[in-house]
Amino acid sequence: MKLIKKIDILIVGLGLLGGSYAKGLKKMGFSVSAITKSRSSVDYALKNGMIDYGTTEIEPDIIAKADLVIFALYPHIFVDWIAKYQQYFKSGCILTDVTGVKGSVVYKVQDMLREDVEFIAAHPMAGKEVAGVQNSDDAIFHAANYIVVPTEKNTPEAIELCRSLGEILGFKQIAELSVSEHDEMIAFLSQLTHCIAISLMCCNNSEGLEKYTGDSFRDLTRIARINDEMWSELFLSNKAALLNEMDRFKSTFDELYDKIKNDDRKGIRDMMRLSTERRGLFDKV
Amino acid sequence: MKLIKKIDILIVGLGLLGGSYAKGLKKMGFSVSAITKSRSSVDYALKNGMIDYGTTEIEPDIIAKADLVIFALYPHIFVDWIAKYQQYFKSGCILTDVTGVKGSVVYKVQDMLREDVEFIAAHPMAGKEVAGVQNSDDAIFHAANYIVVPTEKNTPEAIELCRSLGEILGFKQIAELSVSEHDEMIAFLSQLTHCIAISLMCCNNSEGLEKYTGDSFRDLTRIARINDEMWSELFLSNKAALLNEMDRFKSTFDELYDKIKNDDRKGIRDMMRLSTERRGLFDKV
Repeated sequence: MKLIKKIDILIVGLGLLGGSYAKGLKKMGFSVSAITKSRSSVDYALKNGMIDYGTTEIEPDIIAKADLVIFALYPHIFVDWIAKYQQYFKSGCILTDVTGVKGSVVYKVQDMLREDVEFIAAHPMAGKEVAGVQNSDDAIFHAANYIVVPTEKNTPEAIELCRSLGEILGFKQIAELSVSEHDEMIAFLSQLTHCIAISLMCCNNSEGLEKYTGDSFRDLTRIARINDEMWSELFLSNKAALLNEMDRFKSTFDELYDKIKNDDRKGIRDMMRLSTERRGLFDKV
Repeated sequence: MKLIKKIDILIVGLGLLGGSYAKGLKKMGFSVSAITKSRSSVDYALKNGMIDYGTTEIEPDIIAKADLVIFALYPHIFVDWIAKYQQYFKSGCILTDVTGVKGSVVYKVQDMLREDVEFIAAHPMAGKEVAGVQNSDDAIFHAANYIVVPTEKNTPEAIELCRSLGEILGFKQIAELSVSEHDEMIAFLSQLTHCIAISLMCCNNSEGLEKYTGDSFRDLTRIARINDEMWSELFLSNKAALLNEMDRFKSTFDELYDKIKNDDRKGIRDMMRLSTERRGLFDKV
Protein backbone atom coordinates (compact mmCIF):
# COMPACT_ATOMS: atom_id res chain seq x y z
CA MET A 1 0.00 0.00 0.00
CA LYS A 2 1.20 3.49 -0.83
CA LEU A 3 0.09 6.65 0.87
CA ILE A 4 -1.97 7.93 -2.04
CA LYS A 5 -4.97 10.19 -1.81
CA LYS A 6 -7.58 7.57 -2.50
CA ILE A 7 -6.84 5.60 0.67
CA ASP A 8 -9.22 5.95 3.61
CA ILE A 9 -7.71 7.20 6.86
CA LEU A 10 -9.28 6.74 10.27
CA ILE A 11 -8.05 8.64 13.32
CA VAL A 12 -8.93 7.19 16.71
CA GLY A 13 -8.78 9.90 19.40
CA LEU A 14 -9.30 13.52 18.42
CA GLY A 15 -7.18 15.37 20.96
CA LEU A 16 -4.37 17.81 20.30
CA LEU A 17 -2.32 15.34 18.25
CA GLY A 18 -5.17 13.43 16.58
CA GLY A 19 -6.71 16.75 15.61
CA SER A 20 -3.41 18.07 14.24
CA TYR A 21 -3.00 14.91 12.11
CA ALA A 22 -6.56 15.36 10.85
CA LYS A 23 -5.95 18.98 9.88
CA GLY A 24 -2.70 18.20 8.09
CA LEU A 25 -4.11 15.21 6.21
CA LYS A 26 -7.28 17.01 5.13
CA LYS A 27 -5.19 19.89 3.82
CA MET A 28 -3.27 17.39 1.70
CA GLY A 29 -6.52 16.10 0.23
CA PHE A 30 -7.03 12.84 2.11
CA SER A 31 -10.35 11.45 3.23
CA VAL A 32 -10.31 11.40 7.03
CA SER A 33 -12.80 9.82 9.47
CA ALA A 34 -12.55 9.93 13.24
CA ILE A 35 -13.74 8.02 16.27
CA THR A 36 -13.41 9.84 19.56
CA LYS A 37 -15.11 9.78 22.92
CA SER A 38 -16.61 13.25 23.10
CA ARG A 39 -19.40 14.56 20.90
CA SER A 40 -18.12 18.11 21.18
CA SER A 41 -14.76 17.09 19.67
CA VAL A 42 -16.54 15.50 16.70
CA ASP A 43 -18.70 18.59 16.25
CA TYR A 44 -15.70 20.90 16.44
CA ALA A 45 -13.73 18.86 13.90
CA LEU A 46 -16.66 18.65 11.46
CA LYS A 47 -17.46 22.33 11.78
CA ASN A 48 -13.84 23.25 11.09
CA GLY A 49 -13.45 20.94 8.12
CA MET A 50 -10.85 18.76 9.85
CA ILE A 51 -12.66 15.47 9.12
CA ASP A 52 -15.17 14.13 6.62
CA TYR A 53 -16.99 11.96 9.11
CA GLY A 54 -16.89 11.57 12.87
CA THR A 55 -18.54 9.44 15.51
CA THR A 56 -18.39 8.72 19.22
CA GLU A 57 -19.48 5.10 18.67
CA ILE A 58 -17.43 2.08 17.68
CA GLU A 59 -18.95 1.80 14.18
CA PRO A 60 -17.71 -1.42 12.54
CA ASP A 61 -18.34 -0.06 9.00
CA ILE A 62 -16.14 2.97 9.57
CA ILE A 63 -13.33 0.86 11.00
CA ALA A 64 -13.68 -1.73 8.22
CA LYS A 65 -13.25 0.72 5.37
CA ALA A 66 -10.02 2.29 6.71
CA ASP A 67 -6.73 1.47 4.95
CA LEU A 68 -4.70 3.35 7.55
CA VAL A 69 -5.72 3.77 11.19
CA ILE A 70 -3.89 6.32 13.35
CA PHE A 71 -4.22 5.89 17.11
CA ALA A 72 -3.87 9.07 19.16
CA LEU A 73 -4.88 7.69 22.55
CA TYR A 74 -3.33 7.33 25.99
CA PRO A 75 -1.11 4.21 26.04
CA HIS A 76 -3.37 1.89 28.08
CA ILE A 77 -6.51 2.98 26.21
CA PHE A 78 -4.77 2.23 22.91
CA VAL A 79 -3.80 -1.28 24.05
CA ASP A 80 -7.33 -1.95 25.36
CA TRP A 81 -8.89 -0.67 22.14
CA ILE A 82 -6.90 -3.12 20.02
CA ALA A 83 -7.85 -6.01 22.33
CA LYS A 84 -11.53 -5.17 22.11
CA TYR A 85 -12.11 -4.06 18.51
CA GLN A 86 -9.40 -5.51 16.26
CA GLN A 87 -11.90 -7.90 14.68
CA TYR A 88 -13.32 -4.94 12.72
CA PHE A 89 -10.11 -3.99 10.84
CA LYS A 90 -9.99 -4.52 7.08
CA SER A 91 -7.57 -7.29 6.15
CA GLY A 92 -4.27 -5.73 5.09
CA CYS A 93 -4.80 -2.43 6.83
CA ILE A 94 -1.94 -0.63 8.54
CA LEU A 95 -2.08 0.80 12.06
CA THR A 96 0.18 3.46 13.46
CA ASP A 97 0.19 5.63 16.60
CA VAL A 98 1.54 8.76 18.24
CA THR A 99 2.32 7.30 21.66
CA GLY A 100 5.20 8.91 23.54
CA VAL A 101 6.50 5.64 25.01
CA LYS A 102 7.07 2.47 23.04
CA GLY A 103 8.37 -0.49 25.07
CA SER A 104 5.20 -0.82 27.12
CA VAL A 105 2.93 -0.50 24.09
CA VAL A 106 4.43 -1.79 20.85
CA TYR A 107 5.12 -5.40 21.85
CA LYS A 108 1.73 -5.80 23.54
CA VAL A 109 -0.09 -4.56 20.46
CA GLN A 110 2.00 -6.50 17.96
CA ASP A 111 1.75 -9.70 19.99
CA MET A 112 -2.02 -9.69 20.18
CA LEU A 113 -2.69 -8.32 16.69
CA ARG A 114 -4.29 -10.35 13.88
CA GLU A 115 -1.77 -11.75 11.38
CA ASP A 116 -3.34 -9.90 8.42
CA VAL A 117 -2.97 -6.43 9.96
CA GLU A 118 0.29 -4.59 10.71
CA PHE A 119 1.11 -2.08 13.43
CA ILE A 120 4.06 0.22 12.82
CA ALA A 121 4.83 2.54 15.74
CA ALA A 122 5.69 6.22 15.35
CA HIS A 123 6.29 9.16 17.64
CA PRO A 124 5.70 12.70 16.44
CA MET A 125 7.85 14.76 18.81
CA ALA A 126 5.54 17.73 18.93
CA GLY A 127 3.04 19.09 21.40
CA LYS A 128 1.74 22.07 23.29
CA GLU A 129 1.04 22.91 26.93
CA VAL A 130 -2.67 22.87 26.13
CA ALA A 131 -4.77 19.85 25.22
CA GLY A 132 -7.80 19.15 23.06
CA VAL A 133 -8.84 19.24 19.44
CA GLN A 134 -9.61 22.97 19.75
CA ASN A 135 -5.89 23.61 20.15
CA SER A 136 -4.77 21.33 17.35
CA ASP A 137 -2.55 22.79 14.68
CA ASP A 138 -0.51 20.91 12.08
CA ALA A 139 2.06 23.73 12.11
CA ILE A 140 3.46 22.19 15.33
CA PHE A 141 4.96 19.46 13.13
CA HIS A 142 6.97 21.72 10.86
CA ALA A 143 9.93 22.27 13.17
CA ALA A 144 9.65 18.85 14.81
CA ASN A 145 11.08 15.34 14.58
CA TYR A 146 9.05 12.31 13.56
CA ILE A 147 10.42 9.00 14.73
CA VAL A 148 9.47 5.67 13.23
CA VAL A 149 9.99 2.80 15.69
CA PRO A 150 9.96 -0.53 13.84
CA THR A 151 10.41 -3.98 15.36
CA GLU A 152 11.36 -7.33 13.79
CA LYS A 153 7.69 -7.87 13.01
CA ASN A 154 7.46 -4.91 10.65
CA THR A 155 7.67 -5.07 6.86
CA PRO A 156 9.68 -2.61 4.77
CA GLU A 157 6.41 -1.53 3.11
CA ALA A 158 4.76 -0.53 6.39
CA ILE A 159 7.91 1.30 7.51
CA GLU A 160 7.94 3.17 4.23
CA LEU A 161 4.25 4.06 4.53
CA CYS A 162 4.83 5.33 8.05
CA ARG A 163 7.73 7.51 6.88
CA SER A 164 5.56 8.92 4.07
CA LEU A 165 2.96 9.91 6.65
CA GLY A 166 5.60 11.96 8.46
CA GLU A 167 6.67 13.54 5.17
CA ILE A 168 3.11 14.45 4.20
CA LEU A 169 2.52 16.03 7.59
CA GLY A 170 5.56 18.22 7.01
CA PHE A 171 7.90 17.12 9.78
CA LYS A 172 11.34 18.68 9.61
CA GLN A 173 13.17 15.43 10.14
CA ILE A 174 12.22 11.78 9.95
CA ALA A 175 14.30 9.22 11.78
CA GLU A 176 14.18 5.56 12.79
CA LEU A 177 15.03 4.21 16.23
CA SER A 178 14.64 0.83 17.91
CA VAL A 179 12.16 0.56 20.77
CA SER A 180 14.83 0.71 23.46
CA GLU A 181 16.75 3.53 21.76
CA HIS A 182 13.52 5.49 21.52
CA ASP A 183 12.57 4.99 25.14
CA GLU A 184 16.02 5.94 26.44
CA MET A 185 16.13 9.02 24.27
CA ILE A 186 12.66 10.12 25.32
CA ALA A 187 13.42 9.46 28.99
CA PHE A 188 16.33 11.87 28.77
CA LEU A 189 15.22 14.57 26.35
CA SER A 190 11.56 14.77 27.27
CA GLN A 191 10.59 12.99 30.49
CA LEU A 192 13.58 14.05 32.59
CA THR A 193 13.11 17.66 31.51
CA HIS A 194 9.47 17.52 32.62
CA CYS A 195 10.50 16.01 35.99
CA ILE A 196 12.97 18.87 36.47
CA ALA A 197 10.43 21.54 35.55
CA ILE A 198 7.83 20.09 37.92
CA SER A 199 10.33 19.84 40.78
CA LEU A 200 11.58 23.38 40.22
CA MET A 201 8.04 24.72 40.28
CA CYS A 202 7.08 22.70 43.40
CA CYS A 203 10.21 23.16 45.51
CA ASN A 204 9.72 26.74 46.65
CA ASN A 205 6.46 28.08 47.99
CA SER A 206 7.65 31.60 48.76
CA GLU A 207 5.11 34.15 47.69
CA GLY A 208 5.64 36.88 45.14
CA LEU A 209 8.50 35.24 43.22
CA GLU A 210 6.70 35.89 39.95
CA LYS A 211 7.29 39.62 40.42
CA TYR A 212 11.03 39.15 40.00
CA THR A 213 11.26 36.31 37.58
CA GLY A 214 13.32 36.59 34.44
CA ASP A 215 13.36 34.53 31.28
CA SER A 216 15.62 31.80 32.69
CA PHE A 217 13.09 30.64 35.23
CA ARG A 218 10.25 31.00 32.74
CA ASP A 219 12.10 28.87 30.19
CA LEU A 220 12.90 26.14 32.68
CA THR A 221 9.31 25.89 33.90
CA ARG A 222 7.28 26.36 30.72
CA ILE A 223 6.61 22.61 30.63
CA ALA A 224 5.71 22.53 34.35
CA ARG A 225 2.20 23.22 33.08
CA ILE A 226 1.41 19.63 32.33
CA ASN A 227 -1.47 17.27 31.57
CA ASP A 228 -1.20 15.17 34.74
CA GLU A 229 -3.39 12.32 33.51
CA MET A 230 -1.35 11.72 30.37
CA TRP A 231 2.14 12.40 31.71
CA SER A 232 1.80 10.32 34.88
CA GLU A 233 0.96 7.42 32.60
CA LEU A 234 3.89 8.19 30.27
CA PHE A 235 6.31 8.37 33.24
CA LEU A 236 5.13 5.08 34.73
CA SER A 237 5.09 3.35 31.33
CA ASN A 238 8.77 4.16 30.92
CA LYS A 239 9.78 3.90 34.54
CA ALA A 240 13.09 2.03 34.32
CA ALA A 241 14.55 4.29 31.64
CA LEU A 242 13.27 7.43 33.35
CA LEU A 243 14.66 6.53 36.79
CA ASN A 244 17.97 5.79 35.12
CA GLU A 245 18.08 9.27 33.56
CA MET A 246 17.00 10.88 36.83
CA ASP A 247 19.90 9.11 38.56
CA ARG A 248 22.28 10.39 35.92
CA PHE A 249 21.08 13.96 36.37
CA LYS A 250 21.17 13.74 40.19
CA SER A 251 24.73 12.56 40.19
CA THR A 252 25.90 15.44 37.96
CA PHE A 253 23.87 17.97 39.97
CA ASP A 254 25.49 16.62 43.15
CA GLU A 255 28.90 16.96 41.54
CA LEU A 256 28.24 20.64 40.83
CA TYR A 257 26.86 21.07 44.36
CA ASP A 258 30.07 19.69 45.86
CA LYS A 259 32.26 21.88 43.69
CA ILE A 260 30.35 24.98 44.82
CA LYS A 261 30.49 23.86 48.44
CA ASN A 262 34.24 23.30 48.20
CA ASP A 263 34.96 26.59 46.42
CA ASP A 264 36.33 24.56 43.51
CA ARG A 265 36.18 27.37 40.99
CA LYS A 266 38.18 25.52 38.38
CA GLY A 267 35.88 22.51 38.63
CA ILE A 268 32.78 24.70 38.27
CA ARG A 269 34.25 26.47 35.24
CA ASP A 270 35.14 23.13 33.63
CA MET A 271 31.52 22.02 33.90
CA MET A 272 30.31 25.37 32.53
CA ARG A 273 32.65 25.14 29.58
CA LEU A 274 31.49 21.61 28.83
CA SER A 275 27.84 22.65 29.01
CA THR A 276 28.48 25.67 26.80
CA GLU A 277 30.28 23.58 24.21
CA ARG A 278 27.64 20.85 24.15
CA ARG A 279 24.73 23.26 24.02
CA GLY A 280 26.07 24.54 20.71
CA LEU A 281 25.04 21.25 19.11
CA PHE A 282 21.43 21.80 20.09
CA ASP A 283 20.87 25.15 18.43
CA LYS A 284 18.05 25.24 15.97
CA VAL A 285 19.43 25.44 12.47
CA MET B 1 20.54 65.32 42.89
CA LYS B 2 17.91 64.56 40.27
CA LEU B 3 18.47 62.50 37.18
CA ILE B 4 18.32 65.40 34.75
CA LYS B 5 20.05 65.59 31.44
CA LYS B 6 22.76 67.97 32.46
CA ILE B 7 24.35 65.52 34.90
CA ASP B 8 27.50 63.70 33.84
CA ILE B 9 27.33 59.93 33.79
CA LEU B 10 30.35 57.64 33.87
CA ILE B 11 30.07 53.93 33.12
CA VAL B 12 32.89 51.71 34.38
CA GLY B 13 33.00 48.47 32.38
CA LEU B 14 31.65 48.39 28.83
CA GLY B 15 30.44 44.83 28.49
CA LEU B 16 26.97 43.62 27.57
CA LEU B 17 25.27 45.44 30.45
CA GLY B 18 27.49 48.51 30.62
CA GLY B 19 27.07 48.91 26.87
CA SER B 20 23.31 48.51 27.10
CA TYR B 21 23.15 51.20 29.81
CA ALA B 22 25.27 53.47 27.62
CA LYS B 23 23.01 52.97 24.61
CA GLY B 24 19.84 53.59 26.58
CA LEU B 25 21.21 56.69 28.33
CA LYS B 26 22.62 58.24 25.15
CA LYS B 27 19.25 57.74 23.45
CA MET B 28 17.65 59.68 26.28
CA GLY B 29 20.06 62.55 25.74
CA PHE B 30 22.53 62.09 28.60
CA SER B 31 26.23 62.75 28.41
CA VAL B 32 27.99 59.42 28.92
CA SER B 33 31.69 58.65 29.43
CA ALA B 34 33.18 55.22 29.89
CA ILE B 35 36.25 53.60 31.38
CA THR B 36 36.84 50.02 30.31
CA LYS B 37 39.80 47.71 29.96
CA SER B 38 39.84 47.03 26.25
CA ARG B 39 40.58 49.57 23.55
CA SER B 40 38.37 47.76 21.06
CA SER B 41 35.34 48.18 23.32
CA VAL B 42 35.98 51.92 23.56
CA ASP B 43 36.39 52.14 19.80
CA TYR B 44 33.22 50.17 19.16
CA ALA B 45 31.20 52.31 21.57
CA LEU B 46 32.51 55.58 20.12
CA LYS B 47 31.95 54.45 16.56
CA ASN B 48 28.39 53.45 17.34
CA GLY B 49 27.53 56.65 19.21
CA MET B 50 27.05 54.86 22.52
CA ILE B 51 29.37 57.17 24.50
CA ASP B 52 30.71 60.71 24.23
CA TYR B 53 34.13 59.85 25.59
CA GLY B 54 35.91 56.62 26.40
CA THR B 55 39.26 55.57 27.82
CA THR B 56 41.12 52.48 28.95
CA GLU B 57 43.05 54.46 31.57
CA ILE B 58 42.06 55.53 35.06
CA GLU B 59 41.76 59.23 34.20
CA PRO B 60 41.18 61.22 37.42
CA ASP B 61 39.55 64.13 35.52
CA ILE B 62 36.95 61.90 33.93
CA ILE B 63 36.10 60.28 37.25
CA ALA B 64 36.04 63.64 39.05
CA LYS B 65 33.49 65.22 36.76
CA ALA B 66 30.91 62.41 37.04
CA ASP B 67 27.75 63.01 39.06
CA LEU B 68 26.63 59.42 38.66
CA VAL B 69 29.00 56.45 38.23
CA ILE B 70 27.57 53.10 37.09
CA PHE B 71 29.74 50.05 37.76
CA ALA B 72 29.24 47.15 35.37
CA LEU B 73 32.13 44.96 36.50
CA TYR B 74 32.60 41.49 37.95
CA PRO B 75 31.98 41.59 41.73
CA HIS B 76 35.58 41.34 42.94
CA ILE B 77 36.86 43.80 40.32
CA PHE B 78 34.21 46.30 41.40
CA VAL B 79 35.24 46.02 45.07
CA ASP B 80 38.94 46.36 44.16
CA TRP B 81 38.23 49.35 41.94
CA ILE B 82 36.54 51.25 44.78
CA ALA B 83 39.41 50.47 47.15
CA LYS B 84 41.98 51.75 44.67
CA TYR B 85 40.39 54.76 43.01
CA GLN B 86 37.69 56.21 45.26
CA GLN B 87 39.81 59.22 46.03
CA TYR B 88 38.99 60.57 42.56
CA PHE B 89 35.21 60.77 42.98
CA LYS B 90 33.55 64.17 43.08
CA SER B 91 32.17 64.96 46.51
CA GLY B 92 28.44 64.22 46.56
CA CYS B 93 28.49 61.86 43.61
CA ILE B 94 26.30 58.77 43.55
CA LEU B 95 27.52 55.30 42.64
CA THR B 96 25.39 52.41 41.50
CA ASP B 97 26.04 48.99 39.97
CA VAL B 98 24.56 46.08 38.03
CA THR B 99 26.06 43.24 40.09
CA GLY B 100 24.01 40.04 40.23
CA VAL B 101 24.84 39.29 43.88
CA LYS B 102 24.62 41.79 46.68
CA GLY B 103 25.60 40.44 50.13
CA SER B 104 29.22 39.90 49.20
CA VAL B 105 29.54 43.31 47.51
CA VAL B 106 27.28 45.99 48.97
CA TYR B 107 28.50 45.98 52.57
CA LYS B 108 32.16 45.85 51.54
CA VAL B 109 31.76 48.84 49.24
CA GLN B 110 29.62 50.88 51.64
CA ASP B 111 31.94 50.18 54.58
CA MET B 112 35.05 51.37 52.82
CA LEU B 113 33.49 54.26 50.92
CA ARG B 114 34.21 57.93 51.62
CA GLU B 115 31.54 59.63 53.73
CA ASP B 116 30.76 62.24 51.05
CA VAL B 117 29.92 59.69 48.34
CA GLU B 118 26.97 57.28 48.33
CA PHE B 119 26.64 53.83 46.80
CA ILE B 120 23.14 52.57 46.08
CA ALA B 121 23.02 49.00 44.73
CA ALA B 122 20.83 47.90 41.85
CA HIS B 123 20.33 44.75 39.82
CA PRO B 124 18.95 44.95 36.30
CA MET B 125 17.56 41.44 35.76
CA ALA B 126 18.39 41.24 32.09
CA GLY B 127 21.03 39.54 30.01
CA LYS B 128 21.88 37.45 27.02
CA GLU B 129 23.83 34.24 26.37
CA VAL B 130 26.47 36.32 24.62
CA ALA B 131 28.84 38.81 26.19
CA GLY B 132 30.54 42.02 25.14
CA VAL B 133 29.70 45.55 24.14
CA GLN B 134 29.09 44.41 20.55
CA ASN B 135 26.03 42.51 21.75
CA SER B 136 24.66 45.27 23.95
CA ASP B 137 21.09 46.37 23.38
CA ASP B 138 18.94 48.47 25.67
CA ALA B 139 15.84 46.63 24.40
CA ILE B 140 16.77 43.77 26.78
CA PHE B 141 15.54 46.00 29.61
CA HIS B 142 12.05 46.57 28.30
CA ALA B 143 10.53 43.29 29.48
CA ALA B 144 12.76 43.02 32.54
CA ASN B 145 12.78 43.79 36.26
CA TYR B 146 15.04 46.36 37.86
CA ILE B 147 15.70 45.86 41.54
CA VAL B 148 16.98 48.55 43.85
CA VAL B 149 18.74 47.09 46.90
CA PRO B 150 19.12 49.75 49.60
CA THR B 151 20.71 49.32 53.01
CA GLU B 152 20.46 51.39 56.20
CA LYS B 153 23.24 53.58 54.90
CA ASN B 154 21.26 54.81 51.91
CA THR B 155 19.39 58.11 51.71
CA PRO B 156 15.91 58.46 50.23
CA GLU B 157 17.39 60.78 47.59
CA ALA B 158 19.86 58.19 46.31
CA ILE B 159 17.19 55.48 46.29
CA GLU B 160 14.95 57.79 44.28
CA LEU B 161 17.75 58.59 41.83
CA CYS B 162 18.45 54.89 41.39
CA ARG B 163 14.78 54.18 40.68
CA SER B 164 14.72 57.02 38.11
CA LEU B 165 17.64 55.40 36.34
CA GLY B 166 15.58 52.20 35.96
CA GLU B 167 12.63 54.20 34.67
CA ILE B 168 14.72 56.08 32.14
CA LEU B 169 16.19 52.84 30.85
CA GLY B 170 12.66 51.56 30.27
CA PHE B 171 12.47 48.60 32.65
CA LYS B 172 9.05 47.03 32.86
CA GLN B 173 9.01 46.90 36.64
CA ILE B 174 11.02 48.54 39.37
CA ALA B 175 11.11 46.97 42.81
CA GLU B 176 13.00 47.25 46.08
CA LEU B 177 14.41 44.34 48.07
CA SER B 178 16.73 44.05 51.04
CA VAL B 179 20.17 42.53 50.46
CA SER B 180 19.19 39.14 51.88
CA GLU B 181 15.83 39.06 50.10
CA HIS B 182 17.61 39.84 46.85
CA ASP B 183 20.24 37.17 47.28
CA GLU B 184 17.72 34.47 48.20
CA MET B 185 15.50 35.39 45.28
CA ILE B 186 18.38 35.40 42.84
CA ALA B 187 19.71 32.09 44.20
CA PHE B 188 16.39 30.48 43.40
CA LEU B 189 15.16 32.18 40.23
CA SER B 190 18.47 32.63 38.48
CA GLN B 191 21.42 30.72 39.96
CA LEU B 192 19.58 27.45 40.67
CA THR B 193 18.13 27.46 37.14
CA HIS B 194 21.64 27.86 35.72
CA CYS B 195 22.92 24.99 37.90
CA ILE B 196 20.12 22.79 36.60
CA ALA B 197 20.75 23.69 32.97
CA ILE B 198 24.48 23.02 33.31
CA SER B 199 23.88 19.66 35.01
CA LEU B 200 21.33 18.61 32.42
CA MET B 201 23.73 19.44 29.62
CA CYS B 202 26.67 17.67 31.29
CA CYS B 203 24.96 14.53 32.59
CA ASN B 204 24.58 12.61 29.36
CA ASN B 205 27.35 12.21 26.82
CA SER B 206 25.45 10.00 24.36
CA GLU B 207 26.07 11.09 20.82
CA GLY B 208 23.46 12.29 18.38
CA LEU B 209 20.86 13.43 20.92
CA GLU B 210 20.55 16.76 19.14
CA LYS B 211 18.94 14.98 16.20
CA TYR B 212 15.91 14.13 18.28
CA THR B 213 15.64 17.06 20.60
CA GLY B 214 12.40 18.97 20.95
CA ASP B 215 11.66 22.38 22.41
CA SER B 216 11.49 21.15 26.03
CA PHE B 217 15.14 20.20 26.15
CA ARG B 218 16.14 23.33 24.24
CA ASP B 219 14.25 25.55 26.66
CA LEU B 220 15.75 23.89 29.72
CA THR B 221 19.30 24.21 28.42
CA ARG B 222 19.29 27.61 26.69
CA ILE B 223 21.16 29.07 29.68
CA ALA B 224 23.63 26.17 29.77
CA ARG B 225 25.63 28.36 27.39
CA ILE B 226 27.23 30.41 30.08
CA ASN B 227 30.05 32.85 30.75
CA ASP B 228 32.08 30.62 33.08
CA GLU B 229 34.31 33.37 34.42
CA MET B 230 31.42 35.57 35.53
CA TRP B 231 28.99 32.92 36.69
CA SER B 232 31.47 30.89 38.74
CA GLU B 233 32.18 34.11 40.62
CA LEU B 234 28.45 34.83 41.05
CA PHE B 235 27.81 31.30 42.35
CA LEU B 236 30.65 31.44 44.86
CA SER B 237 29.75 34.97 45.96
CA ASN B 238 26.29 33.74 46.93
CA LYS B 239 27.27 30.27 48.06
CA ALA B 240 25.16 29.83 51.21
CA ALA B 241 21.92 30.96 49.57
CA LEU B 242 22.60 28.95 46.42
CA LEU B 243 23.40 25.70 48.26
CA ASN B 244 20.21 26.19 50.24
CA GLU B 245 18.14 26.45 47.05
CA MET B 246 19.95 23.48 45.53
CA ASP B 247 19.04 21.44 48.62
CA ARG B 248 15.43 22.49 48.31
CA PHE B 249 15.31 21.44 44.65
CA LYS B 250 17.09 18.13 45.34
CA SER B 251 14.63 17.18 48.02
CA THR B 252 11.62 17.83 45.76
CA PHE B 253 13.26 16.02 42.84
CA ASP B 254 13.91 13.05 45.16
CA GLU B 255 10.30 13.11 46.25
CA LEU B 256 9.15 12.85 42.62
CA TYR B 257 11.74 10.10 42.01
CA ASP B 258 10.35 8.04 44.89
CA LYS B 259 6.78 8.47 43.73
CA ILE B 260 7.70 7.23 40.25
CA LYS B 261 9.69 4.34 41.71
CA ASN B 262 6.73 3.35 43.94
CA ASP B 263 4.14 3.66 41.15
CA ASP B 264 2.42 6.33 43.24
CA ARG B 265 0.35 7.73 40.41
CA LYS B 266 -1.81 9.87 42.66
CA GLY B 267 1.27 11.42 44.27
CA ILE B 268 2.81 12.19 40.86
CA ARG B 269 -0.43 13.75 39.65
CA ASP B 270 -0.68 15.89 42.80
CA MET B 271 2.79 17.32 42.12
CA MET B 272 1.90 17.92 38.46
CA ARG B 273 -1.28 19.72 39.41
CA LEU B 274 0.60 21.89 41.89
CA SER B 275 3.26 22.75 39.31
CA THR B 276 0.61 23.53 36.69
CA GLU B 277 -1.28 25.80 39.06
CA ARG B 278 1.83 27.66 40.23
CA ARG B 279 3.22 28.08 36.75
CA GLY B 280 0.13 30.10 35.85
CA LEU B 281 1.42 32.90 38.09
CA PHE B 282 4.60 33.19 36.03
CA ASP B 283 3.06 33.82 32.65
CA LYS B 284 4.15 37.00 30.97
CA VAL B 285 1.33 39.50 31.07
